[in-house]
Order: sequence, then structure tokens, then C-alpha cells
Amino acid sequence: MKIRKAVITAAGEHQRHLPLQTFIDGSGRNRKVLGLLVDEASSAGIEEVGVVIQPGTEHLYRDAIEHVTANVTFMEQAEPRGYGHAVLSADPFLGDETFLLMVSDHAYVSEKTGQSCASQLLEVASGEGCVVSAVQPTHEGRLKDFGAIGGVLFDAGRELYEVKAVVEKPTPTEAEQTLMTPGIRHGYYLCFFGMHVLQASVMEILRRRDADWQPGDHLDLSSALHEAAGRGRYLAQVMKGRRYDLDSRHGLLVGQLAVSLSGHYRDEVLCAITDLLAAGAMQQPAEPLT
Amino acid sequence: MKIRKAVITAAGEHQRHLPLQTFIDGSGRNRKVLGLLVDEASSAGIEEVGVVIQPGTEHLYRDAIEHVTANVTFMEQAEPRGYGHAVLSADPFLGDETFLLMVSDHAYVSEKTGQSCASQLLEVASGEGCVVSAVQPTHEGRLKDFGAIGGVLFDAGRELYEVKAVVEKPTPTEAEQTLMTPGIRHGYYLCFFGMHVLQASVMEILRRRDADWQPGDHLDLSSALHEAAGRGRYLAQVMKGRRYDLDSRHGLLVGQLAVSLSGHYRDEVLCAITDLLAAGAMQQPAEPLT
Repeated sequence: MKIRKAVITAAGEHQRHLPLQTFIDGSGRNRKVLGLLVDEASSAGIEEVGVVIQPGTEHLYRDAIEHVTANVTFMEQAEPRGYGHAVLSADPFLGDETFLLMVSDHAYVSEKTGQSCASQLLEVASGEGCVVSAVQPTHEGRLKDFGAIGGVLFDAGRELYEVKAVVEKPTPTEAEQTLMTPGIRHGYYLCFFGMHVLQASVMEILRRRDADWQPGDHLDLSSALHEAAGRGRYLAQVMKGRRYDLDSRHGLLVGQLAVSLSGHYRDEVLCAITDLLAAGAMQQPAEPLT
Repeated sequence: MKIRKAVITAAGEHQRHLPLQTFIDGSGRNRKVLGLLVDEASSAGIEEVGVVIQPGTEHLYRDAIEHVTANVTFMEQAEPRGYGHAVLSADPFLGDETFLLMVSDHAYVSEKTGQSCASQLLEVASGEGCVVSAVQPTHEGRLKDFGAIGGVLFDAGRELYEVKAVVEKPTPTEAEQTLMTPGIRHGYYLCFFGMHVLQASVMEILRRRDADWQPGDHLDLSSALHEAAGRGRYLAQVMKGRRYDLDSRHGLLVGQLAVSLSGHYRDEVLCAITDLLAAGAMQQPAEPLT
């Protein structure tokens, strides 16, 4: 099963500036976060990318997709009804196809296996033919920032788990009660990586929930995925790589550092860090008079 | 002499996205580069800030000046005739007043003396009542990025120099021939910090040069300052602090790191750096399965 389409959600009120930030890629080129995410999708063989945005904001994003190779379509989320609703806004673009879903406020750095995170995920999803979420073991202190899953080991060699439950931003107590996953280190949970491969079955769940929508409701994806876990095989793949949430306090800085330190100019960036630390330690300019 | 006005130039074709970048300030707040620069001016007692921009781009900058305390006026540079012409575009706003000039593609970090860079510069300019440029001893390998001055020591205790010559982006050979300044370490030159206090006399030089402007000419500030050095006292103040050119390859990253490492969350950022380096060293996720 070839997966050809990806959806990137960029309609969140507080996140929409992030895809527009300038980022230096691993080759030292000036890019935008959105452009890097489209490239991440392309690296996995995606040909068509749909970006979900707030109405009337397409002009802001046009510059951000310069130099990408995939075809990019912008789609407006008519109302802010929640993240699940944003995903549902891509329904006409998808036409029941299985697709890669990515958030727009993360940076991804794969381990140097030569395979991007998106490519790792699509390999599993294509082979298994089911819904798959990328996950990362994450300390319970950071559960407040992520959706988390609980499940059982499916394939130890590939670090694949079968998902039994999904909870959005659980408390540590909730996580301990419902999301403990055998094989995961104590105090850690499998949290979402901001990348999923979803099928028409999940879109059906979202569509049904949206039909019941009442003003004030928040249509979220995690509870739809929890429902999907009860209906058929749903896997979670531990990524060989790390995701950086750009929306946290120093998220842009840490994400940019991670990308640069894994790139071509690692040594240059290390020198700059060392120089800054030395200057700070001395409390004097690092280029002193004699 | 109270200096009340500042001009920030943001009309350069390749630099104009930089003032719009999200930056985390030393207190961990989400800001824009332009907002931080306006604050830098305010910290020195500036009440009115004029920002020179490309025609028709004011709407892009409106969000960037949220939360600033100074009054901000936008002024359009009608044609791209060079940096000196951008400065001259602020002429009606200035009305012959002495003013602080800042570029929009630098980040400034002062040493922890409790006095911002702009404030250090304005203290000297107010006291001496002449044109003053902020400078930083800079290695000759970086002369290609900056304007540089040559001069003689004026006040050793305050690291003040009297400027005799100004050359924009000199070669190391030019610098050795015309910009050697007694007291500065071998291989280093006093390069511009991206902050000046200018008087009506400099604007007159720019105005005269602009009147002779021919298509293809580039009206630069450095050669006008070189002329000013021959006409009256012109000082250069070595700043207790550092400037970070955001327009260099990893400029945004290094500038952001410098601001964060000198701020309230220094330890948090140091932890993140250490964590990233450890993860890179091991070539495996830093949050491993047992």
C-alpha cells in the first residue's frame, strides 16, 4: 500500500506563527519550519501535502514552501472546533486515502540511520496496513505536553506496540492507571511524536463526532484514536530519532540546536556554544583588548 | 543633551524577515526581534522610535511591536538606494535632532553591569556632545561582515577612541594600512556594533550625497561617517557587551543562545544543550527503553 498524501495542521491559534519561523536546516540553508516539514514528508515518498490553516491566512504561508518538491495544497479550517476538526478539514483533499498526519510545531531529527522519521513510520504503516502512531518514550514530567498511549508489545525487534488506550495530556496518576506499557522504563510513557498514519476508519469516527458537535465542544484527535484502538489493530512505533516541541518555552532554540547539531555544521555550532559559555564564564567580551 | 529619538532600519531586501523572527527574551517571554530592539532603545531613555521599512510592508511589523513602551512610527524608504539612504528616509521624523541609530539584524547582550549597550552609548554621546559609534574589537577574519574604524585613544579608562577613518567591510590588507589603532590587540580591529549616535551634521552629508545620486549608486553610511571624521570630533566607544549578527549562517541560533544564556533561564538552556550533546554522542534517543 503506497501512501501518497500527507496533512500538516497549522490552524491552531497559538501555533500558527511557528511554521513561519526561519530555521537553518542541517545544510546551513535558510528555510521555514513549514518547508522543512514538507521535506520530511517528501523524504518518505509523499507526493501531495495538504496544509490546514486558518481562513484567510494562505498568503502568509506562500513564502514558507519555496524550494519544496511535493505539491502543496492549502485548506482552511472553517471554525476552531479542535484538533480533530482540523484534521477533518482535510477530508475532501484525502478522498478516503490512508495518509501521513504531521503537526506543524515540531522539529524532527532522526538518528543517523539515513532514514527520516516519516520514512520509518511509513515503512511500518505500509507493511502492516493499519493505523500507526509514531511515539517516543517520554518522562512523566512531560505528560502535560503530549498525547500518550498504553499498550502491549507487538514486535520487540522493531519496537512496535499494539495500542490499547490513548489519553490526551494525562496526569501522572491517570497515566499510571491506564497507560503503563510492559517493557517501558519506570516513569516513562509512550507519548505521541506528532506523526501518525491514519486511515478512513479514523476519519469516519471524527466525522460522526463532528455531526454531534455542540458549541463549546472540543473535537480532539486523541479520543478518536482511543476509540479506533477498540475497533481494530492500531500500532505505535518507537521512532529512531527525537521530536522537539517548538511551542515550549525554549522550544525554537532547542529544536534549532538539535537540527544544527545533527547537521553538516555541527562543529561550527559547537564552537559557537563553547565561545558563548567561555564569554559568560569570564563576564567580559570574548574578544578582549590586550 | 537629552537624546529622545531612535531610528531602526529594517528596509534591507535580505534582512527584512529578521526583525519579524520570534525570539525568546531573557525572561523566557515570546517576543519578536524588532520588539527587543525597541526595548533596547527604551532602556536608554528613548521615547520615540522610527522604523524604516520597505514601502507597503507596515502591516507585517505591527505584531512585532506589541508590548513595547516607546512610541513607534513606521517610515518607508521610497527606493533601495543603500543604507545611508535608508537612514536619510528618517529625516522628517528627526527634524535635526541628535538620535540613536540601530540596525535591525543584530541582537545585543550587555555584560551584567546592569546597563544596556544603548544606555552605555547614550551616556557617552550625551556627555561628549558629538557623533559616537559603538564598536567591538573584532578579529580580522570577520572584517568582511562589518564597517571598521581606525583612530587614536581618547580616554583609556572608558575605552573611548577618536575616529580618524571609517571603511565599510575592508579587506585585511586595507585594514592593516588604514585602520590600525594603537592599543588594540594585533589582528583585531574596532568594528561597528550596529549602533551609533548621529547628529544633523551627518544627515547633511547624506543629504548632499543623495542630491548627487545617480542610478546604480549605493549611498552608504560608512563613507559619510568617514567624511564626518574629517570635519569634527567623532568618537568610538568600545561596548561592554557583544553584538550578534543575526544575518550570518547560524546567526539567529547563536544570537538566541547568547540572549538565553545571559538570561533568567540560563540553567534550563545549559541543561538542554548538555542533553542534546549527550544524545548526539551516544547516537541513540536520550530517553531510552530500559
